[in-house]
Amino acid sequence: MAAWSSSPSLRHLLLLRPRLPLSPTCLAGSFSRRHIHSHSRRRFLSSASSSMLTHGDEASTHVDANGVVDVNPPRGTRDFPPEDMRLRTWLFDQFREVSRLMAFEEVDFPVLESEALFIRKAGEEITQQLYNFEDKGGRRVVLRPEITPSLARLVIKQGKSVSLPLKWFTIGQCWRYERMTRGRRREHYQWNMDIFGVPKVRAIVLLFQRLGITSSDVGIRVSSRKVLLAVLNMYSIPEHLFTQVCVIVDKFGKLTREEIEKELMSTGLSSEAVQGIIEVLSLKSLSKLEEVLGSGVEAVADLKKLFSFAEQYGYADWICFDASVVRGLAYYTGIVFEAFDREGKLRAICGGGRYDKLLSTFGSEDIPACGFGFGDAVIVELLKEKGLLPDMSRQIDDIVFPLDEVLEGPASSIASSLRKKGRAVDLVEDKRLKWVFKHAERINASRLILVGNSEWERGMVRVKILSTREEYEVKADELD
Amino acid sequence: MAAWSSSPSLRHLLLLRPRLPLSPTCLAGSFSRRHIHSHSRRRFLSSASSSMLTHGDEASTHVDANGVVDVNPPRGTRDFPPEDMRLRTWLFDQFREVSRLMAFEEVDFPVLESEALFIRKAGEEITQQLYNFEDKGGRRVVLRPEITPSLARLVIKQGKSVSLPLKWFTIGQCWRYERMTRGRRREHYQWNMDIFGVPKVRAIVLLFQRLGITSSDVGIRVSSRKVLLAVLNMYSIPEHLFTQVCVIVDKFGKLTREEIEKELMSTGLSSEAVQGIIEVLSLKSLSKLEEVLGSGVEAVADLKKLFSFAEQYGYADWICFDASVVRGLAYYTGIVFEAFDREGKLRAICGGGRYDKLLSTFGSEDIPACGFGFGDAVIVELLKEKGLLPDMSRQIDDIVFPLDEVLEGPASSIASSLRKKGRAVDLVEDKRLKWVFKHAERINASRLILVGNSEWERGMVRVKILSTREEYEVKADELD
Repeated sequence: MAAWSSSPSLRHLLLLRPRLPLSPTCLAGSFSRRHIHSHSRRRFLSSASSSMLTHGDEASTHVDANGVVDVNPPRGTRDFPPEDMRLRTWLFDQFREVSRLMAFEEVDFPVLESEALFIRKAGEEITQQLYNFEDKGGRRVVLRPEITPSLARLVIKQGKSVSLPLKWFTIGQCWRYERMTRGRRREHYQWNMDIFGVPKVRAIVLLFQRLGITSSDVGIRVSSRKVLLAVLNMYSIPEHLFTQVCVIVDKFGKLTREEIEKELMSTGLSSEAVQGIIEVLSLKSLSKLEEVLGSGVEAVADLKKLFSFAEQYGYADWICFDASVVRGLAYYTGIVFEAFDREGKLRAICGGGRYDKLLSTFGSEDIPACGFGFGDAVIVELLKEKGLLPDMSRQIDDIVFPLDEVLEGPASSIASSLRKKGRAVDLVEDKRLKWVFKHAERINASRLILVGNSEWERGMVRVKILSTREEYEVKADELD
Repeated sequence: MAAWSSSPSLRHLLLLRPRLPLSPTCLAGSFSRRHIHSHSRRRFLSSASSSMLTHGDEASTHVDANGVVDVNPPRGTRDFPPEDMRLRTWLFDQFREVSRLMAFEEVDFPVLESEALFIRKAGEEITQQLYNFEDKGGRRVVLRPEITPSLARLVIKQGKSVSLPLKWFTIGQCWRYERMTRGRRREHYQWNMDIFGVPKVRAIVLLFQRLGITSSDVGIRVSSRKVLLAVLNMYSIPEHLFTQVCVIVDKFGKLTREEIEKELMSTGLSSEAVQGIIEVLSLKSLSKLEEVLGSGVEAVADLKKLFSFAEQYGYADWICFDASVVRGLAYYTGIVFEAFDREGKLRAICGGGRYDKLLSTFGSEDIPACGFGFGDAVIVELLKEKGLLPDMSRQIDDIVFPLDEVLEGPASSIASSLRKKGRAVDLVEDKRLKWVFKHAERINASRLILVGNSEWERGMVRVKILSTREEYEVKADELD
């Protein structure tokens, strides 16, 4: 359930003009480092240069022969300075709120997992790009590429004592390792919602609605892997080829039709079967599918049921049948889906499906399950595009400023008592008044509270409301 | 700023009796796996066994020769099932709220960093236990052991355009790699607050107060590294030995006095100097310190100023001078502190200090800075001990249940409209009423909303308030 991004960093997607001029390095994360000359990057000399050199690591961009260290995070990874972090927090809050409304419980897993959880033989991109290595104890470990196998692991570990259905969600970072030729990122965050025990996930529509996205902006393409299974049956193709075929046909759009045909042929399929598969995948109508496969087929029944639910539950306008949707993960077994922007500019916004047989591949009893992964990148691009990102500027309630050093004690007490009332307070000391006014504007403070000698003698402070420029005196202990 | 834990998992610290019987594996995280026999662990057979075996990894506990895969997360790491996640979320919310009140901005960094950021020559434990490895591109990378160097990196990257002081906080996972002889964990989460540009951090006391911890439960030991610097000057010891001496004397309590003396002697110090250092470190009174070092010394002036601030700002009862506090990180330069439980049962709760020269070790201009790291483990042990953990049970507002399959549509609409009003709603289908009642109790639901045929014909639903067992009918569109 990975939807990796090669998008610009979150910083660039903010609606607000950044107040701080961006240094060239701030842009470095968004495209290949090759475009940036070393002299235009800020670099710093590490005091540890001699120790580092013992690693003799010439290939690294992080340490050169002189022990000069790059100020950027590792290739393909992001820092989140405050303005980017606000955006991320806001997005994650949306994910969490939707999950709460849907009565899902949050869980989490180590970002480092055993490699064995992700070794699958179907040739998926995700398992070919594992960020894996051997730890000092000789264990094969991996920075996880997706979260579903960890979920499955915990379901098995919890054992039969837990009551089904389990409705779990998680928001976590996922990793991959590939050559950085296209400046693609090596990490992203992903919201996962999974149900073990029953079949429905309706949260995606709820999230879109909360974000102000409508069904004319976004659609959800739905199909079922059982469509392909039915085609394989039509041509008497052995079922053990099923997963492999799924992973190959998922590459439609990335590879040409000829390349797909070639890959399918190489698994031993007849050219008739290959043509049959490709024809069925082009179908966009459920009744057409029924004509081709026949009405007795499980795939058709499942899909009809799903569309009739959608009708009843009022989200039919969000979904459409599209047989070409297969998804790239080996373990899907039934319904699969992905959300897309109707203008067709962006990659898939999220994707998921039913995976009823994942647990048995781990040697445990199967439990019907379905879920989705929702990345943090494409959705932000879409919101930007549609002008739906909220105001992301910093927001502080009060700045408290003593006009004299001897008033630092009282100013601090005022700050403390305001904080106890829940207000976000910046206590400023050792600055000039002019700086404080600039600072108040910069951090978007609501009020400025000045503690000056003549007022303080009377137990008073001066309050300035920054939006209206209104100014008044108030008793210090009557401040709210 | 690491305060690693060998504590039991969060699950065991919950006040609530877990409703679900714990399987033996759930305990595995809290002590060495060596104690757990393979037959008492749930294991699962991976379908990928043959691929895994190509790695020939005999040392791994995760894959044995038969391709049997462990259901536990990697050694020394934790899963967070829902009940543990609720506790973690609650704790992080406290960290975030205190940071917000203090007008700190949240930032984040990759958990994977360049090794070069953490290579320091002072012999700190933290740099000896790096979870480091070489990536496929030949770069030396590390799962970060602490967050401060990443903060410093981003400060440098942001450049002169940012306005000081920067007040940043972050909550992130930190890693270490050591032999797991004591069952110690390899990861923990840490709250960091750092100020670049000015010297004060008062948030710890605010957090304790919010958590219900008083100054008779917890104290903060304070000293300054300049105390040791003054002692070195008294004995004309060259300043380049300063950091090394700090790292050695921090081991007091872990090593015996004799071992410390031996390590200090091995740096070339005279036995006189060693005795002088050890005597000064035993001082617990600021006036005694002034007697020994003289009043002109910077260390004394700094500490006096800090204690007078604390007096003015009303947190003097939380802090005490203790010359033995040095902290184990190489880069501290001035005031250092750590919070401890007054009963003396636990390890340090958090620790921090001033690090005015870290940026120049990276080749950048120095900015005065201070900060602290606050782990997620010891504080939870303390709260448990004091009976201060809040009720952590799951909380759902409504369960909506259609009594007949044909009412699934209306039930779904009711759930949707309640969610739009902000209520957490669990829509239950395909279950018996008896199960639903049990389920309601298990997930701590407030209301049960039953959609039955005879009521629905009149546009009504039946509502049951689960705490009072009150039951009534209400118009479906009048539900709040």
